[in-house]
Amino acid sequence: MASSKKIKFGALVHGVGGSVSSWRHPEAITDASVNFEFYKRQTLKAEEGKFDLVFIADGLYINEKSIPHFLNRFEPITILSALAAVTSRIGLVGTLSTSYSEPFTVSRQFASLDHISGGRAGWNVVTSPLEGSALNFSKSEHPSHPQRYRIAEEYLQVSRGLWDSWEDDAFVRDKESGVFFDPEKLHTLNHKGEFFSVKGPLNIARSKQGQPVIFQAGSSEDGKNLAAKEADAVFTGQDNLEEAKAFYKDVKERAVRFGRSPEDILILPGIGPIVGRTEEEAERKYQELAGLVTIENALNYLGRFFEHHDFSQYPLDEPFPDLGDFGSNSFRSGTDKIKQKAKEQNLTLHQVALQAATPRTGFIGTPEQVADKIQTWHEEGAADGFIIHSELPSGLSDFVDLVVPILQERGLYRLDYEADTLRGNLEVPIPENRYAKQKVNS
Amino acid sequence: MASSKKIKFGALVHGVGGSVSSWRHPEAITDASVNFEFYKRQTLKAEEGKFDLVFIADGLYINEKSIPHFLNRFEPITILSALAAVTSRIGLVGTLSTSYSEPFTVSRQFASLDHISGGRAGWNVVTSPLEGSALNFSKSEHPSHPQRYRIAEEYLQVSRGLWDSWEDDAFVRDKESGVFFDPEKLHTLNHKGEFFSVKGPLNIARSKQGQPVIFQAGSSEDGKNLAAKEADAVFTGQDNLEEAKAFYKDVKERAVRFGRSPEDILILPGIGPIVGRTEEEAERKYQELAGLVTIENALNYLGRFFEHHDFSQYPLDEPFPDLGDFGSNSFRSGTDKIKQKAKEQNLTLHQVALQAATPRTGFIGTPEQVADKIQTWHEEGAADGFIIHSELPSGLSDFVDLVVPILQERGLYRLDYEADTLRGNLEVPIPENRYAKQKVNS
Repeated sequence: MASSKKIKFGALVHGVGGSVSSWRHPEAITDASVNFEFYKRQTLKAEEGKFDLVFIADGLYINEKSIPHFLNRFEPITILSALAAVTSRIGLVGTLSTSYSEPFTVSRQFASLDHISGGRAGWNVVTSPLEGSALNFSKSEHPSHPQRYRIAEEYLQVSRGLWDSWEDDAFVRDKESGVFFDPEKLHTLNHKGEFFSVKGPLNIARSKQGQPVIFQAGSSEDGKNLAAKEADAVFTGQDNLEEAKAFYKDVKERAVRFGRSPEDILILPGIGPIVGRTEEEAERKYQELAGLVTIENALNYLGRFFEHHDFSQYPLDEPFPDLGDFGSNSFRSGTDKIKQKAKEQNLTLHQVALQAATPRTGFIGTPEQVADKIQTWHEEGAADGFIIHSELPSGLSDFVDLVVPILQERGLYRLDYEADTLRGNLEVPIPENRYAKQKVNS
Repeated sequence: MASSKKIKFGALVHGVGGSVSSWRHPEAITDASVNFEFYKRQTLKAEEGKFDLVFIADGLYINEKSIPHFLNRFEPITILSALAAVTSRIGLVGTLSTSYSEPFTVSRQFASLDHISGGRAGWNVVTSPLEGSALNFSKSEHPSHPQRYRIAEEYLQVSRGLWDSWEDDAFVRDKESGVFFDPEKLHTLNHKGEFFSVKGPLNIARSKQGQPVIFQAGSSEDGKNLAAKEADAVFTGQDNLEEAKAFYKDVKERAVRFGRSPEDILILPGIGPIVGRTEEEAERKYQELAGLVTIENALNYLGRFFEHHDFSQYPLDEPFPDLGDFGSNSFRSGTDKIKQKAKEQNLTLHQVALQAATPRTGFIGTPEQVADKIQTWHEEGAADGFIIHSELPSGLSDFVDLVVPILQERGLYRLDYEADTLRGNLEVPIPENRYAKQKVNS
């Protein structure tokens, strides 16, 4: 079931690092998460490496225990729009939650980004895992996990309807006759559903790629179904080849059940490669990173996945505490995995926390070793591509300079961009305008 | 009561023109409202002219009668963020409504723009005049005019509170000790009000200019009071010197009653200068523009101010119809003015519509004549500066190339930017962090 397409790459750009202590690295820029020049350099490096996209993650709630990167960072729509102006080919994908926003505004913002960038926008549709988010949005409670996914599904229907407000050739713009648009090609959505009531039309045309690319990043049952039904690409976390293959097969099969081609949905696991000229150098780099984490940091980091649970109350060297169902309305797939692994491997809290804070991925080694691993995952049907999120300040550069050329030599990765839109490079279809389609079919 | 400061300038960049038919001009770029290169060129021209800011207007509802520019245009947050990346000194101000958005998101987006641009963001706080907006945001009805302003006032309190979440020196970022921030300098807002309940803190630091610059653009009583209490600058429409002086005096006096200095709030009327090398050339340019408007376009344009009222039902050459209170929950100050003028001057519907569609401003003439007029308004206490919104494709260039040098020679306008933040150039104060202030005072 492996992909017939070349490998796709995205770069997760996340300021001072997505991990708890990577900002302490001697070469780290400590204000990187609000430093535009840093984001620009990283993105241009990824574009130099012919990456399909940069990816900006997000969250809607912090407290004093949040990890450094979450405390002070750019909001995705703004930073992606700024990056659009200084790049020409790379896709621009950002996380935005359907649980605490309005479809009219969000559809407009992504459509506008899509126009500014000439068809390079992508939206990672999430439902907000953190309970605390409700408190920042005048809501008395965080919707339940299944409810959040029902909202997301209706939300996406509204967005796609709004994005089709104008047929591709609706704007005539004939100065002589004074006709600016063809009223037959303007469509008012008139959506009235369980959660939203949105009249439309949207006040912006469809872009070159029809609609922004849809990403999905949840790995729960609800998440996988939403992805299989709606997403062009899935950003997932997978610990090893076997699990990744099972996930890949699962989502592609679900997509087929929704009447889609398995080629139309890309599975992109996130990996944190650590590349050294020798195996020893790579291992040294990993140890340097792991050495920056204190146990206190690690417990905080772990706590965030469990609704900011305070793990400092438990003995460190006893088995990971039994939390029952706790955490299941938050990052469900993540917390389930942590609990299961702790039980199976009989890990202490200390071990679980440190592993969560500095995961030891399989992508550590020489450029050839990392390239081999990537090739294996791609060929064995575990991944259509990868989202690179190295915690080392030089991580992305090392990958682009050392690993990418090997994959290019092997004919597994592009030498240059094939297209000028994100859909074009990802080789996912341009959604036809629903109204134009109706006309053809009627 | 005239300003002691030099003249300030903003450029309203609005794609195919804010008027109904300016896109039909032979030199007009007909897709300008979704053409990033156009926005970039205009903004760089304004920066060449040392303008304080570019201004992006907005609206949340269209229908098939909306004027061309409103049908298909960039969303302000996205286009301003993109412009931030390609400019270095000019301020970036955009309209965003407090009636259909969430303070946590909007405060974040403007704060993020402020960081990306290095302290050049501004927010024009509006309450959405169009009734139809409710239909795009799952609301059963558009809040009343006074209600919208009560919401706006609380919203701004929340935003300012969120912007002060972190004291200026909260981020310690000491790699050695592992201390990323000082918890004493992180503040949780815990706002619970009539309309909003927002816990905070915001997940982004204060910017170089403390808080984004606050613009206000309503001219109703409620609008003037909100401006006088909260705004750093007011974007207003004024037909003539006397009215402009009265408005200027009125708002400044209100500001003083709120305990502020009259110097801390700038009054910036919008003007549409038409500059010719001779008076005849300027007049010819105006006539060319006016000649592009059909009466049908003009009636549609007029209708938009009155909740998309259909004016084609009335006889064209009879007095302007008596609409009673109609339109007063929308653009109240605008519709009141149209009604009053029609009555006083005994105008027909035909005359009112054409005048609304192509207003004949006083700023038509040679570069010297336009400069004289600007000088008069500034010296006589009618304006601290102006927002330039020419409907001619060459309007901004003509103004920058021909009028600006005259004002510079007269010592009325800057030769170069004084500061690298918008507040610095506008000479409005940086709001102190409320918590830091409390500490000093306690």
